[in-house]
Amino acid sequence: MALRTRLTQRLSIEHPILSAPMAGVAGGRLAAAVTDAGGLGLIGGGYGDAGWLEREFAEAGNARVGCGFITWSLAKQPHLLDVALAHAPAAVMLSFGAPAPFASAIRASGAHLICQVQTIAHTREAVAAGADIIVAQGGEAGGHGGARSTLTLVPEVADLLAEAAPDAVLVAAGGIADGRGLAAALMLGAEGVLIGSRFLLSKEIGSFHSALQEAIRCANGDATVKTTVLDVVRKLNWPPEITGRALRNTFVERWHGNEVALADAVERELENYVRAREAGDAAEAGIFVGEAAGLMHEVRSAADIVQTIAAEAEQLLAARGSRLPDAE
Amino acid sequence: MALRTRLTQRLSIEHPILSAPMAGVAGGRLAAAVTDAGGLGLIGGGYGDAGWLEREFAEAGNARVGCGFITWSLAKQPHLLDVALAHAPAAVMLSFGAPAPFASAIRASGAHLICQVQTIAHTREAVAAGADIIVAQGGEAGGHGGARSTLTLVPEVADLLAEAAPDAVLVAAGGIADGRGLAAALMLGAEGVLIGSRFLLSKEIGSFHSALQEAIRCANGDATVKTTVLDVVRKLNWPPEITGRALRNTFVERWHGNEVALADAVERELENYVRAREAGDAAEAGIFVGEAAGLMHEVRSAADIVQTIAAEAEQLLAARGSRLPDAE
Repeated sequence: MALRTRLTQRLSIEHPILSAPMAGVAGGRLAAAVTDAGGLGLIGGGYGDAGWLEREFAEAGNARVGCGFITWSLAKQPHLLDVALAHAPAAVMLSFGAPAPFASAIRASGAHLICQVQTIAHTREAVAAGADIIVAQGGEAGGHGGARSTLTLVPEVADLLAEAAPDAVLVAAGGIADGRGLAAALMLGAEGVLIGSRFLLSKEIGSFHSALQEAIRCANGDATVKTTVLDVVRKLNWPPEITGRALRNTFVERWHGNEVALADAVERELENYVRAREAGDAAEAGIFVGEAAGLMHEVRSAADIVQTIAAEAEQLLAARGSRLPDAE
Repeated sequence: MALRTRLTQRLSIEHPILSAPMAGVAGGRLAAAVTDAGGLGLIGGGYGDAGWLEREFAEAGNARVGCGFITWSLAKQPHLLDVALAHAPAAVMLSFGAPAPFASAIRASGAHLICQVQTIAHTREAVAAGADIIVAQGGEAGGHGGARSTLTLVPEVADLLAEAAPDAVLVAAGGIADGRGLAAALMLGAEGVLIGSRFLLSKEIGSFHSALQEAIRCANGDATVKTTVLDVVRKLNWPPEITGRALRNTFVERWHGNEVALADAVERELENYVRAREAGDAAEAGIFVGEAAGLMHEVRSAADIVQTIAAEAEQLLAARGSRLPDAE
C-alpha cells in the first residue's frame, strides 16, 4: 500500500498500474496475473472476436479484470460490448474513436469507463462521455497511438481535467516500462500508469512467439518507427492520425514509404505476413512495440514486473524527497 | 540551493536549469537573465554569424553564459568556435552533427563540453568525444530534433552512461516547461533540464515579434507538427532524420506534404517568408515551438520562469515523498 493515489483508491488496487489491453495479445492469463500482483489487468478485446473474448475471460478465471476495445472497430459490431459486460468486468477501456455511443451502457453495468486519449480534442470527448478514468497516451507507445508525447500530453490533460472534470482520474501511457517512468508520470500529474510493451516480455503473454520476444529484448529504443504498413498489409482502415509503432525490421524497411505498392501486392504479402507471425520470423512479422523496448532486457513474470516497477518508483520518490531541505 | 544535483555541482549553479541555445533567438540578454536567476543561459549561435555572436556576448555583459552551435553548420565555418571561445564561455553545446572535431578545443578552453543527442547512437558519439554534459533531447522539443521521445530517451541514455561514462552528467530536453517536467526529468535519471520553448514567452527573448508570442500563448500542444517545410523555404540542408517542430499555421498547412512544390517556388516563397517573420504575421511566418506550447500561458521574466519551475519541482517532489510510508 505504498504508492497510494486516486487511481488505487478508485479501483481498489494496491499498485497504480494497469496492463494495456493489447489487441489479441493481452489475454486473460496476463490480465489475471497483473490483477493478482496488485494492479488491474485488461484483456485486449481489440478489433473484436466474440470467441476469443469468451476464451480469455474464462482464462482469467475468478480474477477481477477489465477489457479494452478499439472503439471504431467496436462500432461495427456493438454486440461485442454485451459479450464483455456479461463477464462483469471491473472496467471497460475505449480507445481510438468516439466513446459516447458506448458510455452509458458501460457505466450502467457498474464497470469503470476508461477512455484513452491521444490529443486535447480527444480529452474533451472523453470528458463529455463521462469517463471516470482518462488514459493520456503518448506516441512513444507501442502499437497504435497519436503524435503527441506522454511528457507534454499528461500535464496538459491534467490542467484540462482540473478545470473541466476534477473527479476524473488521469493515467499516463506510452513509454513507461520501469519505476522511473511511473515516478515521472506521478510528477507530471498522473495518478498511475498503463503499461503495454513491458508485458510483451512477460511469462504470461498469450500468443506471442518467443523469437519475437527475443527481437524486442535485443532492440534498443531507436529501433522502432511509426508506420502504417502493418495496417495496410492487414487491410485495416485506421484513422489517418493514428499510426502504429513497431520494430523497424526487414518487412517494415521494405514497405515503409512504399505503402501504395504494398496495397497493390496485399494478397500475396498478407499470406506471407501471417505465416511469418506464426513462424516467429522476426524479420518479416509485424512486431508492435514502443520506444520503451530499450528499457527492457528480460522476460519476467507479470507479478515481478508489476511489483518491481512499484517498488522502484516508491524508492526513487522517497530518495529524492529525502534529499530536499524540507525532508532533511 | 534546494534541488542540488550533479548538474548544479558541475556547473556551480543554483537551479538545474539551462536555457536552450535557440538559433538566432536566444540572445545574450536572455542568457544573462537565466544565469542571473540561478540557471545557466546559453546563447544560440545556431547556423553561425560572427557579428551576431559578438553582439550577443556583449549583450550578456559580465554574466557567465554559454553558447550553442548547430554542429553540421559550424563544420562549414569552424572559425566561429574561436569567436565564441574568445569570450570564455562557461560551456559550449554542440547539437546535430559529429562533435569530435570540436571537442578538444572546447575542453582545452576550460569550457564545459555539452553534447545534445537524439538517439542512442548519438549518445555513443558524445561519449567518445568526451562530453561532460549530455543533453538527451526528445522530439517533443520545439525547433529541430529527432524522433525519440524524452520519456524513453532519458532513462535509456542514463543506463548507457552508467556503464560507459559514469562521470558524464545527463540533462533532459524536449517538452519541459514547468516544475512538473523538471520533477519528471529528475525521476527519469536526468540531473537537470534544458528548456527552450518556455523562454519564447519571456520578456528577455530577442528578435521575436509579440504577435508570434501571442500565437504560441494561445496554442495548445496539439497545434504543432514535425515538418521540413521551414527548412525547405530557407534552403537549409538538414540531415533527413532531424526535422523541425513548429506551429501548424497557414504556411505549414499549405506546404507540409508538398515539399517538392515548395522547393520549386522557393525564391518567391522565401521572400514572403522573411517578410512575414519581420511583420509578425503568425499565419505565414515559421514559428518553431514545442508541444509544451500547451503548458505556457503568459509572458513572464526569465527569472520568474526559472525560479517558479525550480520551486514547483521541489514542492512536487517533497509532497510526493511525504506521502510515502517511509516519510510518514
